[in-house]
Amino acid sequence: MNYDQIFNTAIDQLHEEGRYRVFIDIMRTKGAYPNARCFHGHNGPKPITVWCSNDYLCMGQHEKVIGAMENALHDVGAGSGGTRNIGGNTHLHVELEKELAQLHGKDSALTFTSGYVSNDATLSTLGKLLPGCVIFSDALNHASMIAGIRNSGCEKRVFRHNDMAHLEEMLAAEDPEAPKVIAFESVYSMEGDVAPIHAICDLAEKYNALTYIDEVHAVGMYGENGGGISQRDNAAHRIDIIEGTLGKAFGVMGGYIAADTRIVDCIRSYAPGFIFTTSLSPVLVAGVLASVKHLKSSSVERNAQQQAAAMLKLKFAEAGLPVMDSVTHIVPLMVGDPIRAKKISDILLAEYGVYVQPINFPTVPRGTERLRFTPGPNHSEIMMDELTDALVEIWDRLDMELRKAA
Amino acid sequence: MNYDQIFNTAIDQLHEEGRYRVFIDIMRTKGAYPNARCFHGHNGPKPITVWCSNDYLCMGQHEKVIGAMENALHDVGAGSGGTRNIGGNTHLHVELEKELAQLHGKDSALTFTSGYVSNDATLSTLGKLLPGCVIFSDALNHASMIAGIRNSGCEKRVFRHNDMAHLEEMLAAEDPEAPKVIAFESVYSMEGDVAPIHAICDLAEKYNALTYIDEVHAVGMYGENGGGISQRDNAAHRIDIIEGTLGKAFGVMGGYIAADTRIVDCIRSYAPGFIFTTSLSPVLVAGVLASVKHLKSSSVERNAQQQAAAMLKLKFAEAGLPVMDSVTHIVPLMVGDPIRAKKISDILLAEYGVYVQPINFPTVPRGTERLRFTPGPNHSEIMMDELTDALVEIWDRLDMELRKAA
Repeated sequence: MNYDQIFNTAIDQLHEEGRYRVFIDIMRTKGAYPNARCFHGHNGPKPITVWCSNDYLCMGQHEKVIGAMENALHDVGAGSGGTRNIGGNTHLHVELEKELAQLHGKDSALTFTSGYVSNDATLSTLGKLLPGCVIFSDALNHASMIAGIRNSGCEKRVFRHNDMAHLEEMLAAEDPEAPKVIAFESVYSMEGDVAPIHAICDLAEKYNALTYIDEVHAVGMYGENGGGISQRDNAAHRIDIIEGTLGKAFGVMGGYIAADTRIVDCIRSYAPGFIFTTSLSPVLVAGVLASVKHLKSSSVERNAQQQAAAMLKLKFAEAGLPVMDSVTHIVPLMVGDPIRAKKISDILLAEYGVYVQPINFPTVPRGTERLRFTPGPNHSEIMMDELTDALVEIWDRLDMELRKAA
Repeated sequence: MNYDQIFNTAIDQLHEEGRYRVFIDIMRTKGAYPNARCFHGHNGPKPITVWCSNDYLCMGQHEKVIGAMENALHDVGAGSGGTRNIGGNTHLHVELEKELAQLHGKDSALTFTSGYVSNDATLSTLGKLLPGCVIFSDALNHASMIAGIRNSGCEKRVFRHNDMAHLEEMLAAEDPEAPKVIAFESVYSMEGDVAPIHAICDLAEKYNALTYIDEVHAVGMYGENGGGISQRDNAAHRIDIIEGTLGKAFGVMGGYIAADTRIVDCIRSYAPGFIFTTSLSPVLVAGVLASVKHLKSSSVERNAQQQAAAMLKLKFAEAGLPVMDSVTHIVPLMVGDPIRAKKISDILLAEYGVYVQPINFPTVPRGTERLRFTPGPNHSEIMMDELTDALVEIWDRLDMELRKAA
């Protein structure tokens, strides 16, 4: 038994497939975002423009958020010092959960250390509480939902992405008396498409299934108050559990669910991933609270982001770049090969000061490797023109074909 | 299929067993810790003394930590904005991992969003990378290790707590060629006892097993530089993977592993719980970096904490209170009944302004419910005397027997 050999083989395989990941070492510059400093392979930091952050609305730099965090830092201190049950339940956590419940029109909410943990802990616990439960999962669900479903030990049925006929076929095939959960996302972050929430809820009602929606790429960004696609589509009341993140549009870190009090109390009481972990730092909680409150009443940031995304998609399309269909703020450019995607990314960083990470397996299926741009309110038209020109030059240099101009 | 009924039954069961958890709503007061404000069941906050925090050394209030976090907040912003691979790898993360690797004398380290996630992600991924692996787990291992082992899908053998003969018996019974991992903790946080690290490593060498140690209740607090029990016992070089937390003695939030570069690279590259989650906020990372550096060179805090724990244990024993054997900083008081443990805790909070949470199942086995005190450098002798007197009064009021004075 040679452990070294096994570990070496595991790493060699990634190199061979061209998907060994190199983390680019950066530091954003508060107040100047999307400009940042890159410490990667250079003597001293070099200025770059970030095009792949999930701080979609720049709330991680917003003065209200920074101010609230500074206050909490001086009022309460750095960490919570314990689990929610043992010393780590600050008044800020209680306030934030009220705010998040209200955002989604639910009775209760519960915060977790991350969106990943929210999904894993909630789905796995839900499955364990419902004996004989069958979980219906969209084929493109996020890794954290897949982990939660697998860890629940439940039977799992994977329906084709957003395919209602396939979902219904699977629902109809199960015992009508078996507990059922339909788990899906609102915005699929690597494609930029959106789930048909009402159609899913219709099926859930017809077959008496619970509904679980992951809104991590939508909260803060869609709906009149940033309640996500379920708010925009006036469907939140039809969803049993809404899951969101505090680390993307809200700009800080953490995750949560919102649901009726009974369900939240069950997860709070039975989920090891919630019970046995130090709660979110009060500093983070204070920042998120300010962020959620701000985005409840301000649509300036979401509108500006939508405009930026529309503009970049148009510029890519006009230049003949293979921008994928997206009805959201996500702007993915198909490459279809991991080595080439990495190469484009490397050239952009080294020669153009543009930072966009290649997206490869297991984040997306093999053969659909891509670059994924997330323009925000502070990406200017000049930046977009420079980016488009750079991409066209690289496409040409690598003998990749451009489409006919639209 | 009535979902409401199932959820109601799940909650009712907790009430019946006397272990429904009520989170006490508090807020620490920076600079005055262990004093805090309690928002629970009162009009406006009421002053309390916290006796159950895992901010063991008060580093969450240390001026170096607060200062570093404030700087990062203004320099970088609130959140990292992405996963480590996609936009969320700041220079601070890179520096912290170097520091943590060095602390444990390892080549590499990797940070996670929590200690729970460190254990779950690392153990589950390790098990999946090693085909046919058998994991040997101490009977009192933390829930997060149990989750990681279960999620690995490996065969699991549970050996009696700290029982080397039982562990050897189990190791000897397996195929010598099968990969093996021995997973254990250094300080068991609900008992206060310590693992025989060298004896475990001797067995690991004899049976060619990897060793995985959870040092979350020891890092920062034991060893010349805060490297934990494995440093104190000069055994770190014999351990393959050391796991720690950034949310207890280091006072902030997050978790990590330290190991050789090959193993760290495998976990970094294959663990969904690491790959698919927004990285730690740079504000937290900056705070932890300051904390780890401080505790590397200062032993003032750990010495003061050890003295406080020794003093409280002595005072409890002299008063005849059932303080459990503990060779560490943990001071557990056995109650043995969930309803009574909760009652003592409630009286302490309501009448004495003392906050200590009852510890019940599933955190400890049924019938061993207890109160767990964590005195720190800032708990004064006067506070300890008042606490001891309060407990003696309550013990008397509830007709519980005191031991003969030692």
